[in-house]
Amino acid sequence: MSADRTAAAPGAERAFTRELARLFATEDPGVLLGIGDDAAVLRTGPRTVAACDPVVEGVHFTRGDSLALVGRKAVHRNLSDLAAMGALPRYLLVSLLLPGWFTAAARRQLVHGIAKAARGAHCAVVGGDVARTPGPLVVTVTALGAAPRRPLRRSGLRPGDHLHVTGPLGGSSAGRHLRFLPRVAEGAWLAGQRVVTAAIDVSDGLLLDLATLLEASDAPGAVLDARAIPVHPAAHRMALSSGHTALHHALGDGEDHELLFGCRGSLPDGGPLRPRARRPIGTVSATPGLMLRQNGRLRPVTVAGYQHDV
Amino acid sequence: MSADRTAAAPGAERAFTRELARLFATEDPGVLLGIGDDAAVLRTGPRTVAACDPVVEGVHFTRGDSLALVGRKAVHRNLSDLAAMGALPRYLLVSLLLPGWFTAAARRQLVHGIAKAARGAHCAVVGGDVARTPGPLVVTVTALGAAPRRPLRRSGLRPGDHLHVTGPLGGSSAGRHLRFLPRVAEGAWLAGQRVVTAAIDVSDGLLLDLATLLEASDAPGAVLDARAIPVHPAAHRMALSSGHTALHHALGDGEDHELLFGCRGSLPDGGPLRPRARRPIGTVSATPGLMLRQNGRLRPVTVAGYQHDV
Repeated sequence: MSADRTAAAPGAERAFTRELARLFATEDPGVLLGIGDDAAVLRTGPRTVAACDPVVEGVHFTRGDSLALVGRKAVHRNLSDLAAMGALPRYLLVSLLLPGWFTAAARRQLVHGIAKAARGAHCAVVGGDVARTPGPLVVTVTALGAAPRRPLRRSGLRPGDHLHVTGPLGGSSAGRHLRFLPRVAEGAWLAGQRVVTAAIDVSDGLLLDLATLLEASDAPGAVLDARAIPVHPAAHRMALSSGHTALHHALGDGEDHELLFGCRGSLPDGGPLRPRARRPIGTVSATPGLMLRQNGRLRPVTVAGYQHDV
Repeated sequence: MSADRTAAAPGAERAFTRELARLFATEDPGVLLGIGDDAAVLRTGPRTVAACDPVVEGVHFTRGDSLALVGRKAVHRNLSDLAAMGALPRYLLVSLLLPGWFTAAARRQLVHGIAKAARGAHCAVVGGDVARTPGPLVVTVTALGAAPRRPLRRSGLRPGDHLHVTGPLGGSSAGRHLRFLPRVAEGAWLAGQRVVTAAIDVSDGLLLDLATLLEASDAPGAVLDARAIPVHPAAHRMALSSGHTALHHALGDGEDHELLFGCRGSLPDGGPLRPRARRPIGTVSATPGLMLRQNGRLRPVTVAGYQHDV
C-alpha cells in the first residue's frame, strides 16, 4: 500500500497509510510481505485466479449510500467473480480514489467496511494504493485466490444441459446490490462436481448473463421455465411501482450475484446449495435464441435483458 | 475482463470486450484462462508479488496528454513497483473507467498504449473490467509477478550503508512522468546481490522516498552528497523558469521511478547498472535527520521533499 504524493500533504498520507497497515495487519502465514512496501509478496499455489472490478460513485452506488456497504460491495463484487470460477479467495489489493469531500470519518467507514468484508471471507488485504481524485469516489479491489483443479468456465454448456441458479433474482437495485453475499462456498462445491458444465455470476441480469454463457459455449439457445425461476421478494415489491412484472425484474435486473450454472446429469446430494437451486430453471436447446415457457406457451425473449417485456 | 451493464449499451460493451480479448490475446502458456471469463486463471510460482496503482486524469496526467502514453504510464507505474522488489512482472489486470467524452478512437489509443507497454515488458494482459464513469478517466493496473528468492524490501538499511540511485532525477513533470522506464532488469539484478540492503522506487521524490526507507528500516538519518546526486537535464531546464535550483528538483520532484537502494559493501561487477549508479549519492548515518553535504558544508534538509530549499 503506497500513498500518492499528489493525494494530499505527504504527512497526512503517510499517517493514513500507517493507519491502513494497522487495520489490515494479518497473521496469515501466506502474506510474506503485506502493506508498507512497494508491492506485496504472497505465497501462492500453482494456479492463481485473479479478478479486478471497481465500484464508482454514481455508477455502482450513490452519494447517500452507507460507505461501509460501499466498501463491502467493492470486496464482494470481486469475491463473486472468483466464486463463479469455483475459486477460494485469499488476498485482496485495494485502490482507493478519494474525492475532495471525503472526511476522515468517511474514510474510516469505508475502510472498515472493506476490512469487515475481507475478514468475513477469510481474506487478507495485502496492498494497494490511496490517491486523491477530482472525480467521484472509486474503490477498485483486486481479488486473488487458489484455482480449483477444474475451474468453472463459461464455455461448457451443451444442448440438453439443465440450467440452475443459486438463489432468487430481481429487484437488487432497491438495496440488495450493496448487501449481496458472494456464493463462494457454492462455487467451490460446484467446481468439484463433474456434472457441472459452466457457470457465471449474475451481474448483468439473468437473460444477459445466460446469453453470455451461451455465446461463450457456442450453444444456440435456451428455454427458460417462467414458473421455475426464483423471484426475489424485492422484485415483487419493485413490480408494485415499476409497471413491470416481478418476473421481468428477475429476468432482467442485474447485480444479483447469484451463480447461474449448467448441469449435465444429476447434482450429487450434500453440499451448500439451497433446495431451490437443485430445481432447473430451464434447458440449453439445439434451436437458436432464448425462449420463455409461460402459461403453457413458448415465446422468444430478447437478450438485452431489461428491454424485453414479460 | 467483464463489462459493466451500467457502462453503456450492453451490445457496445460486449463488442468492446471482444475487441480487448483479441487485442490482448496471448500464447503465454502461463495464462490458463485470460480475458472472457469471470476471472483469469494463471500459472504461478510459490511466491507472487502484487501491486495495484491507478492513474487518474487531473492527478497523474492531464486531458491533453497522449492517451497511448497514459496507458503506458498506467502499466509502467506498477512494473516499477515490482522492479523495486526485484520481481519480474508477468501478468496484468486492467480496470478502465471511461468518461462520457471518451470516443472509440480515444479508447483505441489508450488500450494500444497499454498493449504496447505490456508487450515491451513481456507481460500478458489477462483480465480486468471496463465501466463508464461520470468522472475523470481512471486506468488501474494490477501487476503480478514472480518474487525473487530474496525480495528487495524497504526495511534493510543500517548506518554505514551507501545509498545509490539507478538514474538521474528531477523535472519529470515536464513529460518524463509519462515516459519513464521501469527499472525491471536493474531491480532483478539488485535482488540477487547480497550487498544490497533495501530498495524503493522514487515516486514521491528522492528526499521523501529516502525518508520512507529510513523509517521502514528504523534508521536514524542519512547524509547526501550534493555533487554525487545525478541531476536529469529536465531538472536543469525546469530550473531556468522555476526559481529553484536543478538540485532542488532532483531532490524533491516525484515520478522519476529510478530505484533508490542501499548497499553494504561493494557491488559486484557486471549486470545492467549504469556506471553512475555505482557511485554512492550518500550514506546512512547514525545521527538523526537528513543532511546535505554541499560546498564543504553539512546542513539539514526537510523531509517534505519539495518544501525544502537548496
